[in-house]
This record gives sequence, structure tokens and C-alpha cells, in this order.
Amino acid sequence: MTRKELFEQIKKKESFLCVGLDTDLSKIPPHLLDTKDPIFEFNKQIIDATADYCVAYKPNIAFYECLGAKGWESLQKTLEYIPKDIFTIADAKRGDIGNTSRMYAQAFFENMNFDSVTVAPYMGNDSVTPFLEFDNKWVILLALTSNQGGLDFQMHELTNGKRLFEEVLTKSQEWGSTDQLMYVVGATRAESLLDIRKYAPDHFLLVPGVGAQGGDLASVAKYGMNDHCGLLVNSSRGIIYASNGEDFDEQAQNAAQTLQQEMKVLLAEYLK
Amino acid sequence: MTRKELFEQIKKKESFLCVGLDTDLSKIPPHLLDTKDPIFEFNKQIIDATADYCVAYKPNIAFYECLGAKGWESLQKTLEYIPKDIFTIADAKRGDIGNTSRMYAQAFFENMNFDSVTVAPYMGNDSVTPFLEFDNKWVILLALTSNQGGLDFQMHELTNGKRLFEEVLTKSQEWGSTDQLMYVVGATRAESLLDIRKYAPDHFLLVPGVGAQGGDLASVAKYGMNDHCGLLVNSSRGIIYASNGEDFDEQAQNAAQTLQQEMKVLLAEYLK
Repeated sequence: MTRKELFEQIKKKESFLCVGLDTDLSKIPPHLLDTKDPIFEFNKQIIDATADYCVAYKPNIAFYECLGAKGWESLQKTLEYIPKDIFTIADAKRGDIGNTSRMYAQAFFENMNFDSVTVAPYMGNDSVTPFLEFDNKWVILLALTSNQGGLDFQMHELTNGKRLFEEVLTKSQEWGSTDQLMYVVGATRAESLLDIRKYAPDHFLLVPGVGAQGGDLASVAKYGMNDHCGLLVNSSRGIIYASNGEDFDEQAQNAAQTLQQEMKVLLAEYLK
Repeated sequence: MTRKELFEQIKKKESFLCVGLDTDLSKIPPHLLDTKDPIFEFNKQIIDATADYCVAYKPNIAFYECLGAKGWESLQKTLEYIPKDIFTIADAKRGDIGNTSRMYAQAFFENMNFDSVTVAPYMGNDSVTPFLEFDNKWVILLALTSNQGGLDFQMHELTNGKRLFEEVLTKSQEWGSTDQLMYVVGATRAESLLDIRKYAPDHFLLVPGVGAQGGDLASVAKYGMNDHCGLLVNSSRGIIYASNGEDFDEQAQNAAQTLQQEMKVLLAEYLK
């Protein structure tokens, strides 16, 4: 999916919501556990319920990988089920030496046809660029993450005057354009979006951490939105586990719609 | 496997060799492609041929993941086939927020019973510690990697006087002991092992990059060995693709034995 197509979807749906498909057998409604593929069955119903209110889906790969071969099958089926006009993110946080990153890129972009994959920056240039060699595919690079440990290294100041995450933002722009590179920026530090926008005014940002992790949607929009929105805000648990009963899909729909309605107001306010 | 048991294996086999199982369908001998599971068949014969000369096996997970569900099955069978007295490394370079890292840990330590997994440090404390909660299991944290891009961020100097990889070495020692934490240090910068040993004198180091990536075994031993060896030196392509013919296992054995013989000499010279 191109940047323009993504922005069109955002305007059409009046939403910049990404739904995180962090599907966990221990958390899905018990009545689904008797189905042939409970993970896929859950995802399918969540997708049916929320597709009108979101512009992206983001399965975190750990939740599938921990189920072995069967998990990969559920993931593949889920990806094939997602409507083609919705942006897909493999939240994998991969990154390895060049020829190995290429195999990860192949896994997510060719075998599974994801639009994007999250990548960790620690190994630098040649661990990231193999993911950038695919047409209309995206790297979403970790910049400033929403977890407590994000402070351990990312906020460290370098002798060149930048903090590490700022160096990641700067350096990585030598590797790919705004049409193929986004950044992960945690919503728990919404004010940091001002710093991010100094270095990456035009990029799309994937913002996890709204909801269960404590981030605030209005602040994210205030500090982070640019003239083509430039935000994908993720919510996982707050939507997909809104209810543990037979009405889980209905409640997920309500939760997604509530966020979409807030987003509609924020788009009207901040989209220039 | 405990640190003591690993050292016992090193002394017994007079080897600190790790064989990288980076098994690629486009590189294995053509006569194996007709078998039911060519990846496992190749690994099985490589393991049979090299098990006497190495103390560890390291499948890089990308090579299996890019084959989807089938790849995970080949990986699982491979792991089950590796003799129990040989240390196993899931070279996965994972790392995510706490509850998600826990699922990766479960995937590699419980579902597949690997002894260790490589982890990327960018997300800090709570992305790493969930891997440290398993008895006799190891985190192998990326410190200074062997690829060109390793220079992009890892060598950056921080305002506290340390370079980023040195900060990773220092900070991470608050999270786990030398009995559960190793570091990845590329052999292409063997002299850097002196710097690493300043910060991590007692830790085991996993050193990839000997052979195809240009590292030099004698320098690695000279600068990196400590009083319990403290080194696992990985070779992948130089061993497993020593031949592309029907004699691939024999040639892999020769390549592994040649390295083991060099290691025997180096252990005699440097092990105090």
C-alpha cells in the first residue's frame, strides 16, 4: 500500500486506528476454544466487527510464534482474511545481518504479503535496508518505545548532542524515504512526539500504548499529527478483549467505534 | 545447560565451536531436495557429521521462519535431534515489551527447549528480563555485531564516556548473572574483544563472523579467552556448505574438525 492510499483510507474512514491482533488462547472467550482454529476464529470475528473503524491491523508475531507451526497457519489465514484496503503490520521487531534480514523480509512480504514489518535498529544499516527493497512495502523502525525499558538506552545522550532515538531517526532517513519508512513511538510519552516531529516531520508514526499502556489519544494527535495525518494509533487489549463473553465481537466493535469517533474529531481539529 | 556443564563439554571435546545451522533450500545439495523434509534431512546429516567437534548448534530462525509453518516443523525436529549434551542457541534476535517477550521466551524455551536465545537490547530492561526467568536458560544479548551496520549505533559515544555497546554490557549486568547472560560480539572486530573483556571479563561471548564474514580465530582466542574459555565461536557457511555434492557431510566434518584442531591448540595456549 502506498502512502497516498493509506491517507485516502484515513480520510474515508475518518480514523487512524490500528487494531492489534495480540491473540492469546488464555484470553479469548472460552466458547471459541472448541472451534478448529480458535485463534483464527477469534481474529475473523474481530476483523468482521472492527474493519469499518480501523485502517490497519497489527498482529504481534510473538503471539503466533509461541504456538509453533499451528500459530503460523493461524497467522497466514488471518492475513488472508483482512480486507485488501486495510494496511497490515507484522509486529515482529526483527533485524539481523543483511542476508538474514532478507529472509525475514521474504517471510513477511512475499510469503505472507504484509504491507509492513517492525524492525529493531540496533544492528544498523544493512540489517534494515533488505526490508526496504520491496515495492510499496514498509519498514516501521523502533525509535522510542512505550515500555519502561525504553529509557535504558533510547534516551541516552550521544556526544553529537542527539539522544539515541534521535540519532536513529536521523541516520535511518539516509536509508529510505517517507514512502517506505515509518517509526514506532510510544504513546506513554506523547510530549516526546514534539521531539520526534523535529526530526521526522513527514513520516508516519505507529503509536502503540494508547489504552492498556496508559497513553492519551488527544495528546498524541495534538503533538503528532501532520498534514497527511502521519499517525497510526494502535489499541490491542482495549478492543479485542473488551469482553470475554459471547458478545466479544460486539463489544470490540463498540470499543473500536468509540476510538474512531474520537479520531474523527481530532482529524477535524488538527488535519490542516 | 549450566555454565559449568558447558565448560566441561569444552574441555572434553577440546573445542569451543558452534555450528550455525543456517539451512537454505537454495544452497543445500540438490540430491536432498527430493526427500520429505530436505531442511531436516540436511541438518540431521550435518549434526551426525559434526557433533563430535562442536559444543553448540545455532539455527538462525530466519531461515526457518521464511518457510512458514513447514519451517517451524523442520526446526522443531532439528532441535529434538541435537544430542542433549550440546548447547543450543535460537538465533532469533527477539525483544519486545514485557508480556510479549515472555511469549517469545515461551516459544523458544518451553515449546522448543532451546538452551538460549539471542536478544536485541534496544528496548531495554523489561524486553530482556522475561527471558531470564527460566532455570538454566540463557539470554545472549547483542553487544557488538559483526556486520557493517553495527558501526551505525553501537560504536556511538555517550555523554557518560561509554560507547553504546559498553553501556549495553554494563547496564545488562544489573538484569542477570554470568550464569544466564552471554553477549554477541562479532569476530570481524577481534581487537574489540579487549574492550568487551574490560566490561565483561567473566561472561561467555558468542562470536559469529569467523570464516565467511572474515574473522580470525587466533585473534579471537588471544583477545577473548578467559579462565573458563568464555567463548563460543560460530561458523556457519564454512562448515555446512563446505561441499554442495553428495559428500557434503564428509566435507562438513572435515571443516568442523579443522576448526576443532585449531581450537585445541588455542585452548592449550590460552586457557589458564
